[in-house]
Amino acid sequence: MPTPAVYVGPEDNPLLTEAVERGGGKVVALAEAEAVVVSGGHGELPDLHDGVRWVQLPSAGIESWVASGALDEDRTWTSAAGAYSTSVAEGAVALLLAGIRGIGRAARARTWDGAALDGVQGTLRGSTIAIVGAGGIGRAMIPAFTGLGARVLAVTRRGLPVEGAYETWAADRVGEVFAVADHVVLAAPATAQTAALVGAAELAALGSQGWLVNIARGSLVDTDALVEALRAGTIAGAALDVTDPEPLPDGHPLWTEPRAIVTPHSTNPSTLRLPLLADRVAENVRRFGAGEELLGLVDLSQGY
Amino acid sequence: MPTPAVYVGPEDNPLLTEAVERGGGKVVALAEAEAVVVSGGHGELPDLHDGVRWVQLPSAGIESWVASGALDEDRTWTSAAGAYSTSVAEGAVALLLAGIRGIGRAARARTWDGAALDGVQGTLRGSTIAIVGAGGIGRAMIPAFTGLGARVLAVTRRGLPVEGAYETWAADRVGEVFAVADHVVLAAPATAQTAALVGAAELAALGSQGWLVNIARGSLVDTDALVEALRAGTIAGAALDVTDPEPLPDGHPLWTEPRAIVTPHSTNPSTLRLPLLADRVAENVRRFGAGEELLGLVDLSQGY
Repeated sequence: MPTPAVYVGPEDNPLLTEAVERGGGKVVALAEAEAVVVSGGHGELPDLHDGVRWVQLPSAGIESWVASGALDEDRTWTSAAGAYSTSVAEGAVALLLAGIRGIGRAARARTWDGAALDGVQGTLRGSTIAIVGAGGIGRAMIPAFTGLGARVLAVTRRGLPVEGAYETWAADRVGEVFAVADHVVLAAPATAQTAALVGAAELAALGSQGWLVNIARGSLVDTDALVEALRAGTIAGAALDVTDPEPLPDGHPLWTEPRAIVTPHSTNPSTLRLPLLADRVAENVRRFGAGEELLGLVDLSQGY
Repeated sequence: MPTPAVYVGPEDNPLLTEAVERGGGKVVALAEAEAVVVSGGHGELPDLHDGVRWVQLPSAGIESWVASGALDEDRTWTSAAGAYSTSVAEGAVALLLAGIRGIGRAARARTWDGAALDGVQGTLRGSTIAIVGAGGIGRAMIPAFTGLGARVLAVTRRGLPVEGAYETWAADRVGEVFAVADHVVLAAPATAQTAALVGAAELAALGSQGWLVNIARGSLVDTDALVEALRAGTIAGAALDVTDPEPLPDGHPLWTEPRAIVTPHSTNPSTLRLPLLADRVAENVRRFGAGEELLGLVDLSQGY
């Protein structure tokens, strides 16, 4: 088995250096490198010579690298796509549980009111949770939800079976899930098909015991319809890591809505990203050395 | 199989009536009853004639019924002990997740600050969570924690293996868990042995990334030591459903401590209790009819 010669840069990063070695590689100067692990930046790359056959980018989304024109057809590119799924999924589970168990309300209290949470708490046990967009992130939520006694209805583009879900529906039936599920978690990409996917009708179908969680993109939800549904009690609550507009402006009604929890697009914080990136780097260096297919391969024709 | 004749009272309760029928019983007047399902109250019972062979009480703790002298040796008594475990366990999981993912802080924010949660978020994935007092409630947390990629170190009185825990320790080693575990969940009864179990030394051992969750009794934690540890950043945070003193007085430093989340002894809210009680009633009526051992048997000599 050859030992991959890998450059880590432009910034020194001990965790990524260690990851290269963990994957069976050795860390070398750029001039000697056959592979490059990009350790930071937003679109800038080290100068790549012809000997560099593979470049590992540090982010899951690579829009900025594509936009900068840095990606060429001369070598293999990998992103960190999927590497952060478990972290974002944990954040989504935390948001739904915090919502349904009244922890958002409790965190704002400054006095002991034993009855305050009595009427507003529900339980995930025995409930049906729809995960709209059961890709890597959505799928990573399933063991936690089933461990809490809920069952998962997955919605994917094509509707092929998703492990751990009791049923998987194709995206063309997504409008129906709001009436079937007790709670809905949005984890789908922002596309023309998902824009304003959740409006007044979907919220009415979700119902007064239902929670909506959005960790995808703000554009999936009609914010005005959501504000009205929360005010009226049409749904039990909403926990949002993404909003439209984003950032959510000061004074927006969602900041003071008792049924809402807002986190500032923080389900994938940098403190959790780096260890996960290091694991991905170690695995990809191992695969590179073994001649196996790399994780997170970039399709330049698709731009991701 | 005989059909148990069951009285539900003193209050009418459709959910409990339905549960009796679901368990294969029929609901009758008190005079014709061989079993009684107590539907409410705090220590008051219907007048029991000699034909009543079994009484199901509605609460898990039965101190008030024992204190009122209502429980006699003439028949079998069952409490709801264990029936609410899953609900309380879900609340504990919600508290730990909300803490470690910064949701308590986010819920208090009134402005979008993407960096605010960056340094404070951790993850349960790959962590070791000690459950101190792995009885029914503690054990019910294990599938959720393992589903989130954590492993559980259980502490029980005798240290017999607990399913799903990677290790179980006996209570005499409980002092060591704070150094071994990343996070600690207190779910043990309040006894002389557990009073002030968590003090300054245990919090120091837990460390600056560790969360403490208390859903047991406030007396297990030295509150002054906890306030100091939170202020100093000795631990990452504390999520408390029970406090000492309880109720926590207005103006107490825990109300405004950024690292703390306080819920008002609300992990077992009445809205969630009744459906779980109904399930217990249905199961016990079935067992009564089949001559099987009932769940939640009261030991009058022990008082629980």
